[in-house]
Amino acid sequence: MSDLPAEFALIARHFRPLAGPGALDLRDDAALLAPPPGRELVLTVDAMVAGVHFLPDDPPDLVGRKLLRVNLSDLAAKGAVPLGYLMTVSTPKATPESWYAAFAAGLAADQVQYGITLLGGDTTSTPGPISLSLTAIGHVAPGTAVHRFGAQAGDGIWVTGTIGDGALGLAVATGRLADPSGYLLERYRLPQPRVGLAICGVASAGMDVSDGLVQDLGHICRASGLGATIEAARVPLSDAARAAGPDWLKTCLAGGDDYELLLAVPPAHEAALQRAASAAGMAVTRIGSFHQGEPLVMVRDASGEPLALERGGWSHF
Amino acid sequence: MSDLPAEFALIARHFRPLAGPGALDLRDDAALLAPPPGRELVLTVDAMVAGVHFLPDDPPDLVGRKLLRVNLSDLAAKGAVPLGYLMTVSTPKATPESWYAAFAAGLAADQVQYGITLLGGDTTSTPGPISLSLTAIGHVAPGTAVHRFGAQAGDGIWVTGTIGDGALGLAVATGRLADPSGYLLERYRLPQPRVGLAICGVASAGMDVSDGLVQDLGHICRASGLGATIEAARVPLSDAARAAGPDWLKTCLAGGDDYELLLAVPPAHEAALQRAASAAGMAVTRIGSFHQGEPLVMVRDASGEPLALERGGWSHF
Repeated sequence: MSDLPAEFALIARHFRPLAGPGALDLRDDAALLAPPPGRELVLTVDAMVAGVHFLPDDPPDLVGRKLLRVNLSDLAAKGAVPLGYLMTVSTPKATPESWYAAFAAGLAADQVQYGITLLGGDTTSTPGPISLSLTAIGHVAPGTAVHRFGAQAGDGIWVTGTIGDGALGLAVATGRLADPSGYLLERYRLPQPRVGLAICGVASAGMDVSDGLVQDLGHICRASGLGATIEAARVPLSDAARAAGPDWLKTCLAGGDDYELLLAVPPAHEAALQRAASAAGMAVTRIGSFHQGEPLVMVRDASGEPLALERGGWSHF
Repeated sequence: MSDLPAEFALIARHFRPLAGPGALDLRDDAALLAPPPGRELVLTVDAMVAGVHFLPDDPPDLVGRKLLRVNLSDLAAKGAVPLGYLMTVSTPKATPESWYAAFAAGLAADQVQYGITLLGGDTTSTPGPISLSLTAIGHVAPGTAVHRFGAQAGDGIWVTGTIGDGALGLAVATGRLADPSGYLLERYRLPQPRVGLAICGVASAGMDVSDGLVQDLGHICRASGLGATIEAARVPLSDAARAAGPDWLKTCLAGGDDYELLLAVPPAHEAALQRAASAAGMAVTRIGSFHQGEPLVMVRDASGEPLALERGGWSHF
């Protein structure tokens, strides 16, 4: 094998160990997947480019895990069970072998955590920055996937975990905020996709929060033809986010990179949601409700007054 | 919609018209796919980078079609029926809107030709060259997909269509060869994946020829644990390739970008292969055979002597 082209050797050393059944050891041009009988597949893809979605000197293991986790977060928002993934990796010729080793080690750790394997991929060179893409595949019972549309007036607005840590972590990474515990930076670099929260048949609509709570809530409002009101004081913040102080509240509400789930839940399903969250070991918090009206998002402060956000406030999107 | 971010407007104008059922109009973060009952899925992914896999000033419609077709060729080599695809498009901010329009128009034309639709995608910016990835999904009867392994001693070596046009087309594109008819350049820029050739249960092994006939035959030899001998005079050439003259024969045998199928076919299945080819309107030609021995590829010239190839000749790979 020693006289194989360098690309094949790279695949053999770093990516073949990630391959699961059906991937044919990455020796073939295509993978096989026997879909679970009677299930519907859920497919999602994201690209990440160095200098745009991550910093060129970010730890490669965290780059790999974030690439995988942002896609797992999309699957989680549909209520899907992850099955596996395909990936492309385009790297400059000068990329050291240690980069691939660390990148693959990060993926290997997450494969164990989420019970998935690599199905196939493509490695190429590029004269530009590292460019990555990942297609994740999951499954749901037919007809039960959660969509952005489907929220009803009177549904509560719920979120998992805490909001704003990712945006504050970016502020830490760029030197604008102190982070004594390191918690915020960790939350920015390593999202915790809410895989395993059983939302099918419970949430009437939902998505993951990647572009900021208020903007993403606007997507559900538009898709569902409803208005929404949230109470800023109810939005769950981590201890580290609270410690940053009230000046950072708007960053929490309008920032991004949360990878928490944002759900519309009818009052009759609230107990079911709380049981599902308890079973998955996750926190869920009701932060507001949907109502008839223009697809606007209103954020109220503690005194009930509208809170104006510089970005993603209570206006048309 | 006019105050949506530019990315959403771009998706709405150029990519939403490509979306099929299950793609949720590309308004969601994930797509749904109900796999055909009782079928196995075949998945393949390829990345293409400007300056590596295509030239920055190549016509964008042909770039889109080539991106799709190289993946359809991988599906064809497994004997799979194409279902749909997901795609990522990372472009410099200065990319004119006309580029996306032409790129999408090429994809639209091929979607009609191959009966598939876009299931999902992601568009991002990049500070580097245009970077594309495409994940194609097809299906086969369980257990019938064709692999690189599985060839048996005595199997004939068969190819579809003609070999070498892609490599000669690249020579035309780079000014090293004349192409009065334009045929070779067209073959390089717009592969014709052999979708629809019913090879399941007929071929014992196979792959598509993308890295050159001799090198790719070496892959089947290694995967199947066999040697192979091909007769150069039997390798089917197009009229345009013959017109280039005998000096270009080695380029045809060792070049790439053919996207023809290379198949191992037991003698008992030769009639079935020819019926399948006739039904699909494709030519198939027997160019040699597999035999017990080291995984070497021997190319014989018209007088039976070994033909030495500068690249990808009869040596270990």
